[in-house]
Amino acid sequence: MCRFLAYLGEPVFLNELVCAPTHSLVHQSLHASEAKTETNGDGFGIGWYGEHAEPGLYRDICPAWSDENLVNLCRQVRARTFFAHVRAATGTATTRANCHPFAHGRHLFMHNGQIGGYHRIKRRLEALIPDAFYDTRRGSTDSEALFLLALANGLESDPVAAMEATCATVRGLMQEARITEAFRFTAVLTDGESLTAFRWACDGRPPSLYYRESERGLTVVSEPIDGCKEGWTIVPKGGTLRATRGSRAVVSLPRTERAAA
Amino acid sequence: MCRFLAYLGEPVFLNELVCAPTHSLVHQSLHASEAKTETNGDGFGIGWYGEHAEPGLYRDICPAWSDENLVNLCRQVRARTFFAHVRAATGTATTRANCHPFAHGRHLFMHNGQIGGYHRIKRRLEALIPDAFYDTRRGSTDSEALFLLALANGLESDPVAAMEATCATVRGLMQEARITEAFRFTAVLTDGESLTAFRWACDGRPPSLYYRESERGLTVVSEPIDGCKEGWTIVPKGGTLRATRGSRAVVSLPRTERAAA
Amino acid sequence: MCRFLAYLGEPVFLNELVCAPTHSLVHQSLHASEAKTETNGDGFGIGWYGEHAEPGLYRDICPAWSDENLVNLCRQVRARTFFAHVRAATGTATTRANCHPFAHGRHLFMHNGQIGGYHRIKRRLEALIPDAFYDTRRGSTDSEALFLLALANGLESDPVAAMEATCATVRGLMQEARITEAFRFTAVLTDGESLTAFRWACDGRPPSLYYRESERGLTVVSEPIDGCKEGWTIVPKGGTLRATRGSRAVVSLPRTERAAA
Amino acid sequence: MCRFLAYLGEPVFLNELVCAPTHSLVHQSLHASEAKTETNGDGFGIGWYGEHAEPGLYRDICPAWSDENLVNLCRQVRARTFFAHVRAATGTATTRANCHPFAHGRHLFMHNGQIGGYHRIKRRLEALIPDAFYDTRRGSTDSEALFLLALANGLESDPVAAMEATCATVRGLMQEARITEAFRFTAVLTDGESLTAFRWACDGRPPSLYYRESERGLTVVSEPIDGCKEGWTIVPKGGTLRATRGSRAVVSLPRTERAAA
Repeated sequence: MCRFLAYLGEPVFLNELVCAPTHSLVHQSLHASEAKTETNGDGFGIGWYGEHAEPGLYRDICPAWSDENLVNLCRQVRARTFFAHVRAATGTATTRANCHPFAHGRHLFMHNGQIGGYHRIKRRLEALIPDAFYDTRRGSTDSEALFLLALANGLESDPVAAMEATCATVRGLMQEARITEAFRFTAVLTDGESLTAFRWACDGRPPSLYYRESERGLTVVSEPIDGCKEGWTIVPKGGTLRATRGSRAVVSLPRTERAAA
Repeated sequence: MCRFLAYLGEPVFLNELVCAPTHSLVHQSLHASEAKTETNGDGFGIGWYGEHAEPGLYRDICPAWSDENLVNLCRQVRARTFFAHVRAATGTATTRANCHPFAHGRHLFMHNGQIGGYHRIKRRLEALIPDAFYDTRRGSTDSEALFLLALANGLESDPVAAMEATCATVRGLMQEARITEAFRFTAVLTDGESLTAFRWACDGRPPSLYYRESERGLTVVSEPIDGCKEGWTIVPKGGTLRATRGSRAVVSLPRTERAAA
Repeated sequence: MCRFLAYLGEPVFLNELVCAPTHSLVHQSLHASEAKTETNGDGFGIGWYGEHAEPGLYRDICPAWSDENLVNLCRQVRARTFFAHVRAATGTATTRANCHPFAHGRHLFMHNGQIGGYHRIKRRLEALIPDAFYDTRRGSTDSEALFLLALANGLESDPVAAMEATCATVRGLMQEARITEAFRFTAVLTDGESLTAFRWACDGRPPSLYYRESERGLTVVSEPIDGCKEGWTIVPKGGTLRATRGSRAVVSLPRTERAAA
Repeated sequence: MCRFLAYLGEPVFLNELVCAPTHSLVHQSLHASEAKTETNGDGFGIGWYGEHAEPGLYRDICPAWSDENLVNLCRQVRARTFFAHVRAATGTATTRANCHPFAHGRHLFMHNGQIGGYHRIKRRLEALIPDAFYDTRRGSTDSEALFLLALANGLESDPVAAMEATCATVRGLMQEARITEAFRFTAVLTDGESLTAFRWACDGRPPSLYYRESERGLTVVSEPIDGCKEGWTIVPKGGTLRATRGSRAVVSLPRTERAAA
């Protein structure tokens, strides 16, 4: 389990959301409230959109709470869109390449969750990633594999369909391997101008996901950063949040859950 | 606040005490029970006596829970005396040189506690350390300064008197600077053949300290490593534990507390 | 010995000067040409002026040549003034706090050189730094001590006089301690709007220092970054270069050398 | 290109061979003489046989020349068989898992060389490694892949045949992919009691390999550690050195080269 924060709106200094709030992401690296693991000390990362179409990336393996470089960067960098993530490893090594967010071309992706029994389907999952995307794999996490497979499934043109296809593929592999552990997938994706957030789990227990809209912009988080839930809306289980610069966010439920609702 | 473990006895693999137990020190780095801070993720260290009079030392800045080198070393190294420490920083940087234990010649020292208002007396405290010892200062912690000053105060010949003199000096500096925060000092010291452990605080609230004796040897810990308190004796507040290879440990109370008792 | 680069002018992406050129600073970290040590792999740092008066700082202990964060940052960050430095340690530890540049308020400082016999005068030198500045000391290098002492000597209002006073003090301490090794000081200082570079050594053998002016701005380097000396002017031994945004750089010789000339 | 050292004989402190000699491996990390790259600063590793059948392993990503833990360990650890390696990366990341030696059960393996065009055959090469061995893959290097494939090819019972089969497979994949860069393979393998060293390259230009036998034991190195070639024998191109505890080393040429000779 991890904790993350995503922002899309008017340019703000990262510091305002990542470091300064009472229950900021940096604070959550040591004291998360709504996660199974209170400590998220296995590295961290930030990704942001500056003057280029491609995002910047800063990831390191020390805990976020003690990294002076992170504080320094967050004070200096102002961005209209950015991601921040603190990691609690679930079986793969603490390396920079395993820290979120992951970047590919204009896209950033970060994940909180886990493919149950991942090591039993890792090779088959990786085998489905086409060479062009596999060549950019730098780490060994399930999260990065999900991202690369989704890219191969058309993430750039239709993120929701690509992620649904990817998750269906993973479910298929898990069933073939008779894996009984859960696949949980709370994640956010952006190209700098639009943002899609997912909250889904095969066992109906996806990690939490909240958002808040203000005149300035949209903030999407694992748990509220000010320590109170006022002003924050929870994304329902199975829900998908979509937002584009300049428009309000829209939350939709997947077909199956809509039917059930 | 930190967590530590010290051992003196028949040679054992470090792994048996540092990594393997239910509530081992490595486990405590993520989930301490009796500390103010549950997470001790700001580096760690081990010191051990092998074939030389001088101890070996391995310290690193990542959390103990994710360091494969630590696991590997603890599996291989067998020692008759060793120290292990996981750190929760109290204001100084996360560097190797600030990780415990500290080594000097044949001695190892580690500390759990804090000099209140340290930064206000740091320079005066350091000024009292003679050149010969100051030259070996590598970090910036209060703990290392205490150790070096105690060495100057005759730690090698009389550890208890040297530590009492050192703590009195620190108390004096604190009073001069009108510091109202507490000075807490739970610490262990060894030359490989004898071991001295201290549990003292100026406000009567020193960090916890336990020990257990078996046929194999003496183990001194911040908190029991098997998750239950059975078999463990707590060192009373203000108490000092002394042990020499081949003899039983002796716990004594300081003069003032003896009077009060 | 280290290698460095400073820039003052129209905003440019750091990448253009730090990573891209044939003989860029990152390349010099592995293959310096004019230094006593070809390898400068003991950490690195960049400092830059963005939207705040205080500069940003990113320093790490791995070699610059293999740090993907550095490449990423240099691609994203555009600055009107910045410093970059690759370190070859001369006796002090490889920690972030010992990496250049050093920041204090609005100032950045970096140094290539060494106080000969530093460990013999370290305590006396540090004792001369007033509390207000000493409290911000994070590392243990001679370079940071020089910077803090110069700040105490009035660096903010008159950088050249403050540095001359500081160097004279160091020379005095060295003579008292009968140190025969050299004190070499090639260094750059900025407040974001003006820049001062020094090239001096007590034995007449200061590390190299070059500069180049174009319409876009001023670049000051340890050695040319394009691998050829064309277009670059060497700062003479004992010389001081001063530049302010919008004006041409002025190089002056110190009084004594002017007399000799 | 990397530099390495292997030892098999009477127990010695690692320090005697790894750190102390004039041109020790630690010295070679900064100043190699016979390598294409003078600097081998992309991490290092040691593996040694202590009281268990499985070797100990200590690997880190900083340069060997500045790692105080390495010096400390080499002073304390005494072993009858050990490997030491300093790395110059050839395209894969600087992570602990990419540092040599690699351990699997009772075996250690380290490599100096490169599979030309590796990224173009990486997936096919990895696909040939059976699950049981692939699951233990921690890094992304060609060297680790070679080791795992050789284990699958029977390395434990016949190291020379297993390595020949592995190299032939790689050659086949390279030819299919029409790779024209060279495959160079200077490597050492041990189970603690016997040692096999290979010096081969498809273009007849394998990295250097020397050995020296004394009453105390056998030392195999990339280049002599005392800075002079006296007392050292070079392993001929295409040659294989085999040694077992208590017997003299035997160097043999491969069939094809024997025919040509």
